Amino acid sequence: MPPRSPLAPETSPTLPPIAGVRLSARACGVRYKDRADVCLMAFDPGTTVAGVFTRSLTASAPVERCRKHLKGGKARAILVNSGNANAFTGKVGAASVDRTVKGAAAQLGCKPTEVFVASTGVIGEPLPDERITAALQGLAADLKGDAWAAAAAAIMTTDTFPKLVTRTAAIDGVPVTINGIAKGSGMIAPDMATMLAFLATDAKLPAPVLQAVLARAADRSFNCITVDSDTSTSDTLLLCATGKAAHRAVKSAGDRRLADFRTKLEDLLVELACLVVRDGEGAQKLITIDVTGAATDKAARRIALAIGNSPLVKTAIAGGDANWGRVVMAVGKAGEKADRDRLRIGIGGVTIAEKGQRRESYDETPVAQHIKGRDIAIAVDVGVGKGKARVWTCDLTHGYIDINADYRS
Amino acid sequence: MPPRSPLAPETSPTLPPIAGVRLSARACGVRYKDRADVCLMAFDPGTTVAGVFTRSLTASAPVERCRKHLKGGKARAILVNSGNANAFTGKVGAASVDRTVKGAAAQLGCKPTEVFVASTGVIGEPLPDERITAALQGLAADLKGDAWAAAAAAIMTTDTFPKLVTRTAAIDGVPVTINGIAKGSGMIAPDMATMLAFLATDAKLPAPVLQAVLARAADRSFNCITVDSDTSTSDTLLLCATGKAAHRAVKSAGDRRLADFRTKLEDLLVELACLVVRDGEGAQKLITIDVTGAATDKAARRIALAIGNSPLVKTAIAGGDANWGRVVMAVGKAGEKADRDRLRIGIGGVTIAEKGQRRESYDETPVAQHIKGRDIAIAVDVGVGKGKARVWTCDLTHGYIDINADYRS
Repeated sequence: MPPRSPLAPETSPTLPPIAGVRLSARACGVRYKDRADVCLMAFDPGTTVAGVFTRSLTASAPVERCRKHLKGGKARAILVNSGNANAFTGKVGAASVDRTVKGAAAQLGCKPTEVFVASTGVIGEPLPDERITAALQGLAADLKGDAWAAAAAAIMTTDTFPKLVTRTAAIDGVPVTINGIAKGSGMIAPDMATMLAFLATDAKLPAPVLQAVLARAADRSFNCITVDSDTSTSDTLLLCATGKAAHRAVKSAGDRRLADFRTKLEDLLVELACLVVRDGEGAQKLITIDVTGAATDKAARRIALAIGNSPLVKTAIAGGDANWGRVVMAVGKAGEKADRDRLRIGIGGVTIAEKGQRRESYDETPVAQHIKGRDIAIAVDVGVGKGKARVWTCDLTHGYIDINADYRS
Repeated sequence: MPPRSPLAPETSPTLPPIAGVRLSARACGVRYKDRADVCLMAFDPGTTVAGVFTRSLTASAPVERCRKHLKGGKARAILVNSGNANAFTGKVGAASVDRTVKGAAAQLGCKPTEVFVASTGVIGEPLPDERITAALQGLAADLKGDAWAAAAAAIMTTDTFPKLVTRTAAIDGVPVTINGIAKGSGMIAPDMATMLAFLATDAKLPAPVLQAVLARAADRSFNCITVDSDTSTSDTLLLCATGKAAHRAVKSAGDRRLADFRTKLEDLLVELACLVVRDGEGAQKLITIDVTGAATDKAARRIALAIGNSPLVKTAIAGGDANWGRVVMAVGKAGEKADRDRLRIGIGGVTIAEKGQRRESYDETPVAQHIKGRDIAIAVDVGVGKGKARVWTCDLTHGYIDINADYRS
């Protein structure tokens, strides 16, 4: 077990209960020993749901099932296990999902199509689903409103700390709560970042509205982080809304009364996504990359991700080396329009190069100091337009190799 | 200095002299101390030239100059330095190229437009070109036909062994020789692989023919290797043909009499490209990835590169872990058409998974044995068409981090 990430927050917040949401977690021995590895989230009747999933063409059985169930727009449960991804398991994997979904539905007295599932861990090995179904009765009996921390711990794989975030927003003057938990921490790249995240709110929002709001917020948070450029087969982000809050009905995602909710949701997702990066396998530094002056926002994000995914940039930062030439290289390989002779590159707020070459007055001292810290800021202006993007990543260290060279063994 | 790669060939071949080609190398102290870091290749009048360069949008000053000079189709010299890439150096960098090109032309009594240049090393620092121009007279005086080994050594940066390959081909029944030298060994990814390679032959071929033949062979060799997915600003592959061989004129790249030359050139480039991978920074294993059953050859190459660039695949192999689930993941993220339920994955000649799941009879023992070796073979059939590609890469190890976390310091 690797030590707690040096980028972890000092403490995790205690998430408040949300009306209509209950949780429980158990050690089922799916793969890990002596730790909770399955969590159940239960929602009161009337809960709506939205989801964003991996774009991998080899998506896992649980992801395929969630996509199907999402069409109904209603959720009564989310059942999650760590240790085994139930991915690339063919018909056997689909049958496993059948059994866990039906088992959970029976315990909660709901339709199987109202049960959502997620699995994370090793790919290609059949899921020992009987270990999960055997625990369902106990999981259902244990459900309670204040078990967010236990749930966040149960979904971890190589994570070194649990990830929990909460926000309060106002809809039409009525306060609503949004809670979120997530797990990383390898196979982290956009569309989606490789991870699981489960959010709940007491807001009262129709499923299509919830979906539109979630998709937009995910695009500006989880789709802007990368640890190692690898996209998981299992990425799942679900947001459930119990509708217990007393605000008046909201019928469109563009409704002005949703402005604060949209802002707070995006804010929560950015924090959650950055927690995932802070726990990136082997991460010693959090790197924030701002790209401006691109042809479009999309081009800016692609350039920012080329920088954020470059092993050479990431190892230089790991080594405390302000090797900005590698940033130039990464801009060049992104394939997006950039004007080499107008390129501006800054690290830690210091402009190092502009107009295609190093500033004559450039003094490396403050940059070298900055790059030795925990939070690294890279800013690049590519000099062709007004597109901009912010992306978060971490450095590439010996720890990443240690963790991934013997994950299964 | 990292130790010699365990994947290095036991010995390097002694390249035969080629009529019309002379070489020399010197220690100029561009950056390194006490080693040759500049090499000059000189060609007799009448030599034609072809070239393939990086597709980086932040290409170096020497690359830009080569592109310009290539239009003339004639070469009298190639001047190469290691230690400084003269990239992202703006007008200062272009002026450096001016001086070295003019200096070399003066020594050899040719036009500046017949001099080609390449620089490799740190990006963004002005090239101390006076150290190179000061050595030109000596370099010219030292020129001789049997200095290929010295030239190959002078162009190395983090390479742990020099890379030399030779082939003999027949054109119209007349034997011709092709010699090639190259350097890696980080920033290695297609279009181009990050590297410099210089080839010479005594074949008599017009520049447009030479260009067509070289471009095709490069596409099947250097554009099929990756070490770390990072594309250099400086990739340069040049092929010079002195025309000293006595075969009859060949006027088209499609001429049947060129068949053997094309084959041998591609063969030489594949060997040279694989030497670059074998010296990939920190490489402990050479990985050959064959993708079949893709929609097109291009799609197959993209899938193969997604596998070859995946840090999770590369670290698993570094750890001797036959984690084929990560290959599934990489196929899924490639974005090319693949039929998950027809996917077949093999390692070391053993089929592990087919029809979307692990074979019931799968026994990991021989695969685990294979993956502990030096040469790893991954075969994937994505089950949708007839496209195929072969790509070479290496594993991702602690050595890569060691080398790149303090390259500059």
